[in-house]
Amino acid sequence: MLKKQTVVLLLILAIVGSSALTLFVSKDHSFATSPGAGILASGGSNGLKQEEAKKLGTALDLIEGNYYQDVDRTKLVDGAINGMMQSLEDPYSSYMGKQTAKEFEESIEGSFSGIGAEVSSDNGNVMVVSPIKGSPAEKAGIRAKDIILSVNGQSLQGLELNEAVAKIRGPKGSEAKVSVKRTGTASPIEFVIVRDDVDLETVKAHMEPGKIGVIEITQFSLNTGERFKSELTKLEQQDMKGLVIDVRNNPGGVLSVVIDIADQFVPQGKVIVQVEDKDKKRDKNVSKGKGKSYPVTLLMNKGSASASEILAGALQQSAGAKLMGENSFGKGTVQTSFEKQLGDGSLLKITIAKWLTPNGSWIHKKGIKPDIAVSQPDYFSVAPINKKVSLQYNTNNSDVKNAQIMLDGLGFKPGRKDGFFDQKTTTAVKEFQSSEKLKVTGIIDAKTAESLESALIKAIRDPKRDNQMKSGIEEVRKEIAASASNK
Amino acid sequence: MLKKQTVVLLLILAIVGSSALTLFVSKDHSFATSPGAGILASGGSNGLKQEEAKKLGTALDLIEGNYYQDVDRTKLVDGAINGMMQSLEDPYSSYMGKQTAKEFEESIEGSFSGIGAEVSSDNGNVMVVSPIKGSPAEKAGIRAKDIILSVNGQSLQGLELNEAVAKIRGPKGSEAKVSVKRTGTASPIEFVIVRDDVDLETVKAHMEPGKIGVIEITQFSLNTGERFKSELTKLEQQDMKGLVIDVRNNPGGVLSVVIDIADQFVPQGKVIVQVEDKDKKRDKNVSKGKGKSYPVTLLMNKGSASASEILAGALQQSAGAKLMGENSFGKGTVQTSFEKQLGDGSLLKITIAKWLTPNGSWIHKKGIKPDIAVSQPDYFSVAPINKKVSLQYNTNNSDVKNAQIMLDGLGFKPGRKDGFFDQKTTTAVKEFQSSEKLKVTGIIDAKTAESLESALIKAIRDPKRDNQMKSGIEEVRKEIAASASNK
Repeated sequence: MLKKQTVVLLLILAIVGSSALTLFVSKDHSFATSPGAGILASGGSNGLKQEEAKKLGTALDLIEGNYYQDVDRTKLVDGAINGMMQSLEDPYSSYMGKQTAKEFEESIEGSFSGIGAEVSSDNGNVMVVSPIKGSPAEKAGIRAKDIILSVNGQSLQGLELNEAVAKIRGPKGSEAKVSVKRTGTASPIEFVIVRDDVDLETVKAHMEPGKIGVIEITQFSLNTGERFKSELTKLEQQDMKGLVIDVRNNPGGVLSVVIDIADQFVPQGKVIVQVEDKDKKRDKNVSKGKGKSYPVTLLMNKGSASASEILAGALQQSAGAKLMGENSFGKGTVQTSFEKQLGDGSLLKITIAKWLTPNGSWIHKKGIKPDIAVSQPDYFSVAPINKKVSLQYNTNNSDVKNAQIMLDGLGFKPGRKDGFFDQKTTTAVKEFQSSEKLKVTGIIDAKTAESLESALIKAIRDPKRDNQMKSGIEEVRKEIAASASNK
Repeated sequence: MLKKQTVVLLLILAIVGSSALTLFVSKDHSFATSPGAGILASGGSNGLKQEEAKKLGTALDLIEGNYYQDVDRTKLVDGAINGMMQSLEDPYSSYMGKQTAKEFEESIEGSFSGIGAEVSSDNGNVMVVSPIKGSPAEKAGIRAKDIILSVNGQSLQGLELNEAVAKIRGPKGSEAKVSVKRTGTASPIEFVIVRDDVDLETVKAHMEPGKIGVIEITQFSLNTGERFKSELTKLEQQDMKGLVIDVRNNPGGVLSVVIDIADQFVPQGKVIVQVEDKDKKRDKNVSKGKGKSYPVTLLMNKGSASASEILAGALQQSAGAKLMGENSFGKGTVQTSFEKQLGDGSLLKITIAKWLTPNGSWIHKKGIKPDIAVSQPDYFSVAPINKKVSLQYNTNNSDVKNAQIMLDGLGFKPGRKDGFFDQKTTTAVKEFQSSEKLKVTGIIDAKTAESLESALIKAIRDPKRDNQMKSGIEEVRKEIAASASNK
């Protein structure tokens, strides 16, 4: 029953840009020279045949002349283009209005203009997860866990996270007067922050014991290639013995960027990815790099899509890396965007090609199977508990089920995890309440439910509970040991 | 959890035509003279401005020139019109391709060409519910409960019901060679049926004890007005003392038809319905009839929409009738269709007006509240049981819940109806199995589940279990008695 709710709801993290699932070809790439551009250049004639123009014009007239409410012609024309795109039945081909187009391009570029704070939704509040390094927010003194109450006098109370983000963001050079609640200070703190261009942190790296490097790539933006190379170099200079690359929940990005990254691991002459255009012509991207002598594993999950899957395919099939985690998303197409042609800031994102793994398989709608399957504990993806009704012995519903999964994840033994509140569940709730210094009732009221969720969020953020990362590091460790004993 | 599944799944009845939820203005009505037609008549110029045509043409070019698969231009243009309609955000305004347009018009007309058998889906088979009176199917000897195996040699096995219906239907004069399985005969029976125009049975009437007439209207098609008048006259000639009109699950139909029907009950000079056009001009439809001296109740439910709601509003506010059952659907707009203008058999259905009840209220998205609320038993809307896994003691899921609702509805006492299979549920299952002469195990396997569902369907078809109808008749009986004692 919970299938449609499996997306993590407790942790809505890092919604800074609204990065769409995409694999993007940057404009200087050979694919981007489109026949469409040619047609358009040929002297002002447009592509609508007379009978097509007549049918569309008639429909527009009939709607405008007869609809019982006022009709916005611009909306009708935008609707028509949306409808054409939808008729392709390809979720990755789409029309974007001016504002959406701008956000899309910022996401591709890996930068946006704003204050530079990664925020999440916490009990209806907008909480700072972390200020981005070097950003105006960091320089002004914004800290992790600060709660943003208002921006330029406009309260963020009751807004959806993306609505709140829209209020916090703004053009470079503009001022954001931000009111912040911080634990330990009685009254709100005021900051005046001048918005600036901020780079998204798409690459994060650290070294684990045993000289095992870990690099997480959150998306493949235009600046991700350079950032990756610089972090990898730093790790190698620290005498790294093996590497874990983490592309879990990475929705994709720019094709040339992922090729650049794969190029560093795939030995010279071997294929990274093949791209097949509409005439079935295949273009093989071959490595110019040297490969690496240390073992590499790649962590992926069902949120790893397109560019992430190209990296997975290349590392597995051409660089001998182990893929770990879950089956990947399954997006095997390449898009490009046409933004100048429409002339009004809107753009068309169109699927222009398929991409194939080095051995020529098309993973679209199938994804890539990991070499070693590792799943996260069930409590990583549990839905929040509805707090309007208390749960107690003999209650039987999905909220009880979620509470049982949480209790179990936190080490209390609820007996079952199927939504039936039995005696063992009562005992587990009592133990939890006692450990949290709540009134020991065995009943899950709103307060107990909130404590359960806070405790769970803390648990999920604990790296020790990240099964997939632990297994990835363990695998690298094993391979280092094996290669050492072979010497 | 079951909210999204509440539609009755067990009984898929009477899908002969695909009647859409609509309130239709027939062409001779004053609303139908559209400004759109005027614009079109004015000398071949079509309504697309140059920059609109250029944007649409550019989009079409870019898609056709760049998309990674072959593109069908007709589909793109149809998609564009669909998109325009969608941009109105009005679920009742829509574009229909040639085939859908034809089905829509048949539904409005209340007739179609085919063999004339009302069919339903029964365990994956296409079963005849009843042959329509006077139809080719009835004349050829098709009977209720016949299972249609194939048409013109094409098997119906594994088809969706609407796909099967599409194969059974065909143009007037064409032959359908139908192979039928009938209980009691060993091998299939062959019929050759010549398809003809068949009237949908949109009006069904009978007399209850105490001279209480019941007329069910399943939709308001063009021929429904006459059929209603003829059935009503027959009942009145039998000295009817009171009337129940049943518009439950009636999705609507033609505006002039429902006005004609209401006209017979609303006293002269009183308002039946008001129609407000896009310029806020209101047109009051006033009765030219005489009203009735006998009491009338109207049965409605959440499937009673548009024309049904006009009838409900008129009878309640201008004819003193009692509304019984559930809150109605809530569709307060009027559509008309433009089919000649597009020139290729396709049509646009456009919302051209609001309608208001006699006292001027707009019931859109709210519906009409019954004077006396009566709901059906919960087992009328239970979902089928998934038969792949057996259910037994200690199982806890929504299939158990559905089974418990069925057991309870059939008079076996499952103890609870929340999806937890306890000892009482085991006992109830055993009692059911024993009464059906199944192996008494207390476990719901596929066979027991099927028996449960068959028993339930039989129960739902039993008029004695129709709470709403019983209450409607009871109310009329009371009002007859009250008026008699007042004399």
